[in-house]
Amino acid sequence: MRYSKLFGKTIHNDPKDVKLVSHKLLLRGGFISESVAGRYYFLPLGWLVHDKIKRIIKEEMDRSGAQEMLAPTLHPLELWQETNRTNTAGFELLKVKDRRGAEFALGGTAEEMFVDVVRKMTVSYKDLPFTVYQFSNKFRDEMRARGGLLRVREFVMKDAYSFHTDDMDFKKEYEKMGETYRTIFKRLGLETDKVAADGGYIGGEYCHEFVVPHAEGEDKYFASEDGKYIIHEDIATFTLEEMNLEEELKNYEEVEAVRGNTMEDGVKVHNLPLWQQLKDVVYADEKGDLILAILRGDLEVNEVKLKNVTGAIDLRAATEEEIRAIGSEPGFISPVGLKGKVKIVADKSLRTVVNMYGGANKKNLDALNMNIDRDFQPDLEGDIAMVQDGYLAPDGKSKLVEKRGIEVGHVFQLGYHYSKKMKGAEFADKDGSLKPYYMGCYGIGLGRTMATIVEKYNDDKGIIWPESVAPFKHHLIVLGNDEAIRSTADQLYNSLLAKRVEVLYDDREGPTAGEKFADADLIGIPNRLVISKKTVAEESLEYKKRSEEGAKLIKISEFLSTLDKV
Amino acid sequence: MRYSKLFGKTIHNDPKDVKLVSHKLLLRGGFISESVAGRYYFLPLGWLVHDKIKRIIKEEMDRSGAQEMLAPTLHPLELWQETNRTNTAGFELLKVKDRRGAEFALGGTAEEMFVDVVRKMTVSYKDLPFTVYQFSNKFRDEMRARGGLLRVREFVMKDAYSFHTDDMDFKKEYEKMGETYRTIFKRLGLETDKVAADGGYIGGEYCHEFVVPHAEGEDKYFASEDGKYIIHEDIATFTLEEMNLEEELKNYEEVEAVRGNTMEDGVKVHNLPLWQQLKDVVYADEKGDLILAILRGDLEVNEVKLKNVTGAIDLRAATEEEIRAIGSEPGFISPVGLKGKVKIVADKSLRTVVNMYGGANKKNLDALNMNIDRDFQPDLEGDIAMVQDGYLAPDGKSKLVEKRGIEVGHVFQLGYHYSKKMKGAEFADKDGSLKPYYMGCYGIGLGRTMATIVEKYNDDKGIIWPESVAPFKHHLIVLGNDEAIRSTADQLYNSLLAKRVEVLYDDREGPTAGEKFADADLIGIPNRLVISKKTVAEESLEYKKRSEEGAKLIKISEFLSTLDKV
Repeated sequence: MRYSKLFGKTIHNDPKDVKLVSHKLLLRGGFISESVAGRYYFLPLGWLVHDKIKRIIKEEMDRSGAQEMLAPTLHPLELWQETNRTNTAGFELLKVKDRRGAEFALGGTAEEMFVDVVRKMTVSYKDLPFTVYQFSNKFRDEMRARGGLLRVREFVMKDAYSFHTDDMDFKKEYEKMGETYRTIFKRLGLETDKVAADGGYIGGEYCHEFVVPHAEGEDKYFASEDGKYIIHEDIATFTLEEMNLEEELKNYEEVEAVRGNTMEDGVKVHNLPLWQQLKDVVYADEKGDLILAILRGDLEVNEVKLKNVTGAIDLRAATEEEIRAIGSEPGFISPVGLKGKVKIVADKSLRTVVNMYGGANKKNLDALNMNIDRDFQPDLEGDIAMVQDGYLAPDGKSKLVEKRGIEVGHVFQLGYHYSKKMKGAEFADKDGSLKPYYMGCYGIGLGRTMATIVEKYNDDKGIIWPESVAPFKHHLIVLGNDEAIRSTADQLYNSLLAKRVEVLYDDREGPTAGEKFADADLIGIPNRLVISKKTVAEESLEYKKRSEEGAKLIKISEFLSTLDKV
Repeated sequence: MRYSKLFGKTIHNDPKDVKLVSHKLLLRGGFISESVAGRYYFLPLGWLVHDKIKRIIKEEMDRSGAQEMLAPTLHPLELWQETNRTNTAGFELLKVKDRRGAEFALGGTAEEMFVDVVRKMTVSYKDLPFTVYQFSNKFRDEMRARGGLLRVREFVMKDAYSFHTDDMDFKKEYEKMGETYRTIFKRLGLETDKVAADGGYIGGEYCHEFVVPHAEGEDKYFASEDGKYIIHEDIATFTLEEMNLEEELKNYEEVEAVRGNTMEDGVKVHNLPLWQQLKDVVYADEKGDLILAILRGDLEVNEVKLKNVTGAIDLRAATEEEIRAIGSEPGFISPVGLKGKVKIVADKSLRTVVNMYGGANKKNLDALNMNIDRDFQPDLEGDIAMVQDGYLAPDGKSKLVEKRGIEVGHVFQLGYHYSKKMKGAEFADKDGSLKPYYMGCYGIGLGRTMATIVEKYNDDKGIIWPESVAPFKHHLIVLGNDEAIRSTADQLYNSLLAKRVEVLYDDREGPTAGEKFADADLIGIPNRLVISKKTVAEESLEYKKRSEEGAKLIKISEFLSTLDKV
């Protein structure tokens, strides 16, 4: 490809409001262009990279025995109603109605579609197991879409679905797909952590994310120092120390407390430890019902855990008006006396402390010596606290280390979650009886994977693509407009094309050597070949790896014959 | 691929309500499965064919110098408003609103999107011309979707867009793309007619369809016997004979005519030729405004031509009430006296006849000796008549022959249609002045192409895929469950895989020889290889081409060595 003809050139200035390295470099390198927030064009250069990622995924999926196919993008909404997902996933589901009045969901994930195509067939135990997959556009109605390809509203996803007779058979595929994912990411230059995670609205009982460790990743997870435990913060548990359980229960009392609204204000006024303070946080769920989450003062609420304990689909902070309407006061909330007025959810940490202090539901009034069961009775109890770096693993031995990373893949056990809800999603077993399929599903976002590679492989000059996904293998640069130089470069270009070597040829006449080198560094093709007056004199080219510093002169003939050997 | 593991098997009974051969065979062969009307899954076998079609298109597009990229599927609606296409294409445009209130069109075609990405860049005359293309899902809100993959509501389209400094430069690309299309279709086994056609809501001044001649095609077009003229019925013109222009104009008169409402009734009552009768057809446009189309009695209205003459976007037949509301009477309509009450559009055929007869806007009242200009004055005049088989070409020499076919590709001159409407869609010319780009666009529907191949290549037993798009090259069948037979077949299968030969291996134990042969014929893979007791005894396989009758025995070793030679 001649760079002069390439659609989508480098951009010299940093784009505005762009923070992430991958976002900046992909825009500046001419790989992507923004349509509107969260929706990107892949320019020809970017599409080459995307396609290489796709091919690697396809090769490994095929090798695993999975079969590629394609489902429609518009999903009949009835299917999502059958599994009740219009409610659980409703907030990020785009819907469209055609002129005959039929309603469709713009697929964000396609479990129902794949169950639907399978249940229309006659499936016997002999046909199982099988895994089918597709590459297709997925849509998410995200409120915020920032960070380039890392969080978008439309993207190509490889999603796979497996169908089994039972749990045992599924587990083999789940293992195999996990290995397939590791191989895929390794070939893409990405080492991944396999992190037990929360399944969100996908359903099922367990799932794992493939996470590339990265300081600026959105995913927070924890690994125990002994390596036995690696788990997303949303489902991570930890061992709680018992604090003052040996203390005698004192009498509940209320005292005047002229203070501010923060936890620190409480500590100062009462001169008691933070962990002994009762923390109260009020939320409203998607129906507007209020939830009072209570926990030890040194802990924070994890909202995903709170959703899982309460069954809420969406949560937001309650307003001051809502808090007052249940008979309380912001900054002075207490579960004491609120039974029946709000759903009280207690973290299990409240079983590690006695004689707690905190607000008493009136301005400037605090309570002392609050004790669970005696003074307040939660409606629900569970683990709703955020893990923190340094906490003890559930086994109480190893410390938990906080990690951050970017989720690039996700595998899910679905079990009977879909097949039991969707009528006729059954196979004929050996004895002729009809049984629901046992299922799993497996996803990789291609654009996000591409951005993650850039996040990992770059320097202050630009991208450094791994060979496996580089848009071209070689970046040929001609310096000078002299006839002899040009014809040498043209000839080299043609020789490379004849050998089917992927080469980008910067044949532009205007830019200086410095500009061409800067563009090459920005674009990040692994090998740079320069033809200049100097090299032509020696029938050579200057060769430099993008990932290394030094350049060296190589005879052109020698260079070409090396290629033959590969 | 082992057939026992393939997802999507053959179906033995003809599906209900399926008329077209391609629809039936693709369903029965296990290539596609219907989601809801007009939306299909491509099962693994069908997706292999789709992918081969895609690869051939990609190879030829790349060879032509076009560059693949990808635009978002959701198009910001503002872009379609800029070019006013929300009105012209509104009827088949699916729209979606996200939760922040932003509106999008589900792309049916992507001119605005490609202009938008280009205008965001700095483009100089040096960057032009270029052609970019994508394979992406397209959506059409069709009222009727029947016929399998021939008319669907969602499909993968290859759409390309070219950008030029001027008309001259564009014409070169238009020629080149025409040749590219011919090559693509030829490689796919399809001979095409390049038919001048109507551009519909795409805009531009001219366009050509690539049509595969086929008796049941939806496209009607005309070719002159001398081959000089090949044109879609919607824009085809023809030479009109002058009928009775030598007659003297007689006096207009109205007479009682107790008759039915048809043209034939008029002929019988007045005993005059059909061509002398004035034909009146009333339409309502998309705003509800009425249009009276008048033409010679022996001609029919072509609604696309009528739209082009009037600028109407959508037309429907007027109701009897609407006809009476303008002071007329169904079956007795006349333009005489309706001036100002309805837009009168006269076909140019009215200039070939005098003293016409027909209704007089009252029940059982007819008019005689109606003459254009004297008795009625049209608001618009033009060519609004359907061509018929046997009419004379515009040059008046050669006869027009009616042909039918399936449109598989379409190339459009767009000119400045988009770039002049979209602000900033300009390039810097040599003198530094900003000028709008001159554009073209070029589409191929992949699913429809696949169905067309099946329409052309089939017999009463099933599909006969051309080698270039067959899902596999060989269909290996093992007959009998005997250990020796099985192991010979397995070994052959493995040898073929090792040679990277594409092979589908029918390794099922249940079906009879007849069932396996019938499935192979239905699926239509070009070469059938059978291993049976008989062949094993002779260390041979039975080889048969799907397209030929006879089978022959070939030594397995010989067969394998032939493959090496290819």
